Amino acid sequence: MGASFVHECRYRVESFHSDCTSHLSLAVLGNQLLNTAADHAEHLGIGRQALLEKNEAWVFSRLLIQMDHYPYEFEPYAIKTWIDSVSRFFSNRHFAIFDALGKKIGNATSVWALMDLQTRQALDISQALPDHIDCVAKEHPDCPIERTTRARVTAAEPAYTFQPRFCDIDYNGHLNSIRYIEHFLGALPMEVLRERPVRRFEIGYSCECHYGEPLAVYVSSVGNDEYDLELRKADAIVASRAKVIL
Amino acid sequence: MGASFVHECRYRVESFHSDCTSHLSLAVLGNQLLNTAADHAEHLGIGRQALLEKNEAWVFSRLLIQMDHYPYEFEPYAIKTWIDSVSRFFSNRHFAIFDALGKKIGNATSVWALMDLQTRQALDISQALPDHIDCVAKEHPDCPIERTTRARVTAAEPAYTFQPRFCDIDYNGHLNSIRYIEHFLGALPMEVLRERPVRRFEIGYSCECHYGEPLAVYVSSVGNDEYDLELRKADAIVASRAKVIL
Repeated sequence: MGASFVHECRYRVESFHSDCTSHLSLAVLGNQLLNTAADHAEHLGIGRQALLEKNEAWVFSRLLIQMDHYPYEFEPYAIKTWIDSVSRFFSNRHFAIFDALGKKIGNATSVWALMDLQTRQALDISQALPDHIDCVAKEHPDCPIERTTRARVTAAEPAYTFQPRFCDIDYNGHLNSIRYIEHFLGALPMEVLRERPVRRFEIGYSCECHYGEPLAVYVSSVGNDEYDLELRKADAIVASRAKVIL
Repeated sequence: MGASFVHECRYRVESFHSDCTSHLSLAVLGNQLLNTAADHAEHLGIGRQALLEKNEAWVFSRLLIQMDHYPYEFEPYAIKTWIDSVSRFFSNRHFAIFDALGKKIGNATSVWALMDLQTRQALDISQALPDHIDCVAKEHPDCPIERTTRARVTAAEPAYTFQPRFCDIDYNGHLNSIRYIEHFLGALPMEVLRERPVRRFEIGYSCECHYGEPLAVYVSSVGNDEYDLELRKADAIVASRAKVIL
């Protein structure tokens, strides 16, 4: 297919892409990881438009980001991505993030399922995209990232509640994946996040959230440098879990 | 100085840059206008870093966007910007937005003041940046945009209330300018915005909003296709006014 096994996109910390510390915000980084993935998928012929023609879509299920250092405002950075492995129901896409000098400053991993948009069921990737296994990169940057762990939230009261509004909703009519990251960080104390960058962020998506529905963010701290988080819908249904390590 | 009087940046409607209609979201467009302005200012030698060395900063005071058409997801688009005029206390920067075929699809205007970061007072631009008048473009794209009008909000109850959280705060410690746009659109009914794109959006910034402070969005509809909006702090202090025309 001619596309690279390892795909690279270059970015810059633009205006409003930094947080209050003037470094690249974690939510924008998450968005750029997904942009890079989308761009690679398009080059591989399995992008959103191509899959929509078959009434299929990639569904983003987990993301894990581990950063040594965040680029400063106006600094360029690059993201490399590759498909690391494929199982029957999941495609595992990895990322490496590089600073302006080409030094690796972080890694990320993500898990994607292939969904039949009519039945809303996960498809067997080996059946639906038999060539997908050939997209797995044999050579790629190092990605020494530990496995995800399970967030355990014991808090009885929510840190805060909100209802998704117009700008939170994506083309599917769901709360967009990046807003989950923003709401989880929003539940943590600003004075902590201002002093200590997030070294590791894990998020798992369980179910979709819709326009206007009441949502609540719950947070439990685990020691001094770790937070477990849940985004809950009505009836305590968990829409998403996250873990933040400072 | 060698920099162009009319500066162009090229973008694409990336993942999560579109709204629920799959077109470029107005908030992201606002962000890209400011990115383009920041990039031009940097080329002109009056960017954020250069001004910070003198303890000065551009302060964004008004934005008016008028769009005939919004680019669709993954479509490229271009923004051209130029300084249209300079008065004693304000620099007026205009924009033209073009689709993938180079057809103009919208315009925007913005007003900027130059602030002394120590005294927090507006500076006389002719004194502080005597060369700035030479940056005014003599030739530039057409920008047939009507003057701003005054939003008049009569609503007694807020459409909703919120408190700025970590991801809403910029390097100045203030609610970032793009979040105001998102919150104003968030106060309008989703079913209306889904059917009818915003043809004209005006926003004026009066005072800064901070982390955690209680804020309320008020909205009054003016006929079927126009909304006047206010973002209010405690004691009914108006932090920002906006007008949306569908």
